[in-house]
Amino acid sequence: MYKAQTIQQHFQVSFNYPVIFTRNIFNPENKELIHIVNQGSAKVVLVMETALSQFHPGILQEIRQYFKIHGVVCNVLMLPGAEAIKNDSAHIEEVLKFIHDHQVDRHSFLIAVGGGALLDAVGYAAAIAHRGIRLIRVPSTVLSQNDSGVGVKNSVNYFGKKNFLGTFAPPYAVINDAAFLESLDSRNWRSGIAEAVKVALIKDEIFFNWICSNTEQLNHRNMEVMEQLIFRCAGLHIRHIGTSGDPFEKGSSRPLDFGHWAAHKLEYLSDYQLLHGEAVAIGIALDTVYSGLSGRLKTAEVKSVLDCLIALGFDIFHPMLIDEYSLEIHPKLFLGLEEFREHLGGELTIMLLAALGEGLEVQEMSHALLSDAVKYLLKFQSEFTDTPILIQQSI
Amino acid sequence: MYKAQTIQQHFQVSFNYPVIFTRNIFNPENKELIHIVNQGSAKVVLVMETALSQFHPGILQEIRQYFKIHGVVCNVLMLPGAEAIKNDSAHIEEVLKFIHDHQVDRHSFLIAVGGGALLDAVGYAAAIAHRGIRLIRVPSTVLSQNDSGVGVKNSVNYFGKKNFLGTFAPPYAVINDAAFLESLDSRNWRSGIAEAVKVALIKDEIFFNWICSNTEQLNHRNMEVMEQLIFRCAGLHIRHIGTSGDPFEKGSSRPLDFGHWAAHKLEYLSDYQLLHGEAVAIGIALDTVYSGLSGRLKTAEVKSVLDCLIALGFDIFHPMLIDEYSLEIHPKLFLGLEEFREHLGGELTIMLLAALGEGLEVQEMSHALLSDAVKYLLKFQSEFTDTPILIQQSI
Repeated sequence: MYKAQTIQQHFQVSFNYPVIFTRNIFNPENKELIHIVNQGSAKVVLVMETALSQFHPGILQEIRQYFKIHGVVCNVLMLPGAEAIKNDSAHIEEVLKFIHDHQVDRHSFLIAVGGGALLDAVGYAAAIAHRGIRLIRVPSTVLSQNDSGVGVKNSVNYFGKKNFLGTFAPPYAVINDAAFLESLDSRNWRSGIAEAVKVALIKDEIFFNWICSNTEQLNHRNMEVMEQLIFRCAGLHIRHIGTSGDPFEKGSSRPLDFGHWAAHKLEYLSDYQLLHGEAVAIGIALDTVYSGLSGRLKTAEVKSVLDCLIALGFDIFHPMLIDEYSLEIHPKLFLGLEEFREHLGGELTIMLLAALGEGLEVQEMSHALLSDAVKYLLKFQSEFTDTPILIQQSI
Repeated sequence: MYKAQTIQQHFQVSFNYPVIFTRNIFNPENKELIHIVNQGSAKVVLVMETALSQFHPGILQEIRQYFKIHGVVCNVLMLPGAEAIKNDSAHIEEVLKFIHDHQVDRHSFLIAVGGGALLDAVGYAAAIAHRGIRLIRVPSTVLSQNDSGVGVKNSVNYFGKKNFLGTFAPPYAVINDAAFLESLDSRNWRSGIAEAVKVALIKDEIFFNWICSNTEQLNHRNMEVMEQLIFRCAGLHIRHIGTSGDPFEKGSSRPLDFGHWAAHKLEYLSDYQLLHGEAVAIGIALDTVYSGLSGRLKTAEVKSVLDCLIALGFDIFHPMLIDEYSLEIHPKLFLGLEEFREHLGGELTIMLLAALGEGLEVQEMSHALLSDAVKYLLKFQSEFTDTPILIQQSI
């Protein structure tokens, strides 16, 4: 009755970018950055996290000198990092104005130097200005060098919702500079290692065993071991994004988010007192134990994961995991499962473990088994902790 | 000296969407829209241009009835269209809040009904919320049905710059409903035809000749001829985007923008009193005459283009083309050439004509030849106009 004609559009878009691992990118003899920037005759601007100039007092001067020596004009904007930059849209406005004022066009380069939150926010501004200007990410933390900084996403928080605004926008290039890691405090040094444990557990048993046998070196801040860890972890993330078939997450599955449904919620419930990696370590522990209790993972394998996390100095338990009266999983944490589904839409899809190095997606999690899992973690953690855990006496 | 390792990321992303040509999509017997929406069990919301409910008084009731009959809950938001929606970020905020309040997720549908400006602005909000929710475009004008509405871009104006913010974000589906065209005023009916002339001239001589032989029918608002024009014009745009190799405009070339460097500037210089298509008609005329004067296009071909535009009722001259004292191209218009280059970055790339139906890109335009071209247009137009053109006596 209603005759309709249809034209079917179909095309593919190719995305290419290098992830470069080096040290001291603003040393004039290090040509990695200038080599990329010189590919065009375009403008160059740089946004840097303010805290970096506290930990590396000469860095601003070094950056100015670097571009001067190479004959490139580069204006610099300093901004706060961490969740502050993602929560305040005035900072996005500042980056957009910076882009506008310096007539940065689609063939120009915006270099963003900082931790994951700064890269998320500045990357968002770069993605929406002129429908996307060229972004060079220079991640300055373990977490951003081995995970978020090498990926294809950006975001800011809005309406009080984490990452409510954002786009999928692959960078023009990523340069991981290990020298930045030297100034990290011990929590931030450790935190990013959780993402390496995560990706190893779902993808690469050999890498997991390598981490387990290098916990001492990592705890003593052996830089070469950390560089290896970042290189292998980043490589697994890059390969997954490039080969999974769904880099822009059109489906309901997000396999790299092993342990993350609980982690996201714990970050929020702790009012971001828990760092992302610290929350991920607990989330990994929870879903690993759940994998064991639901008959998917052997008990010895469960134990080796928990041992590894504890050897790295992570807590695997947090009071917000459990309801102290019912001793069941905390109802607020359990809500995180539905929120995780909502964020992607479609069917709930949770990654568990079938073996060390082998993920397995499921479509539901049992409340009863989750409650058993949090009790298991409480008991396990208490055996390694001198200070009594608040909830302990109720067991 | 600075040993670096590199991992090269590379992947492709596939994009698919149907462009459906039909009539009366909110008639319960027309199943095109509900067929798409029912592919998920997801939420559905709709944003509509306020003016449509003036021209089609029962439409809101009709939409409510349509979804009710099909058992779908659909909340509706009404917003202004035209440049107003792109100039005021409060409207983007309204759309984002609408998405947030109704918990629209990445698998939900946002249906946008309106002209090109509304689709640009609402599409932008849909693209940045949750990194992109599913957008169904229902363009309501000739221009949006045959050009902008079937493409992959969205945008809003910012810092007083047209389309400063935006993304490349292919829609989930496009539904062109010819019934909306009946209520267009005569300028908006005509305006969109300019884009058909444009794409015919650079791609398809047969289509150009078809337009020339159907000017009477188009002027008398023959709906079937208009539907054919839209179908063929949209088809050429869709094919170009799908096969040009650069759908997200990473290069400096934008071949579909034949005639557009001058058009963009004329829109601005006329304070948007010229409709986009009216400005495009003048831009086409200018670059066609320039193609002739620079020896690329035969004089008879130049004349056939100008004749066709005039037969369609377009002006091919505007006082802002010429400086009335020097009789050279107006300096403000000439600036548009550099602004056009700046928007894409890289080298100036302008599409001219080598023949009817055959575009040809050049890297520069001569000021002297452009001045000759505007004088040519002034003379040509004055022969077809009863009212004297302001500048005429100075020739």
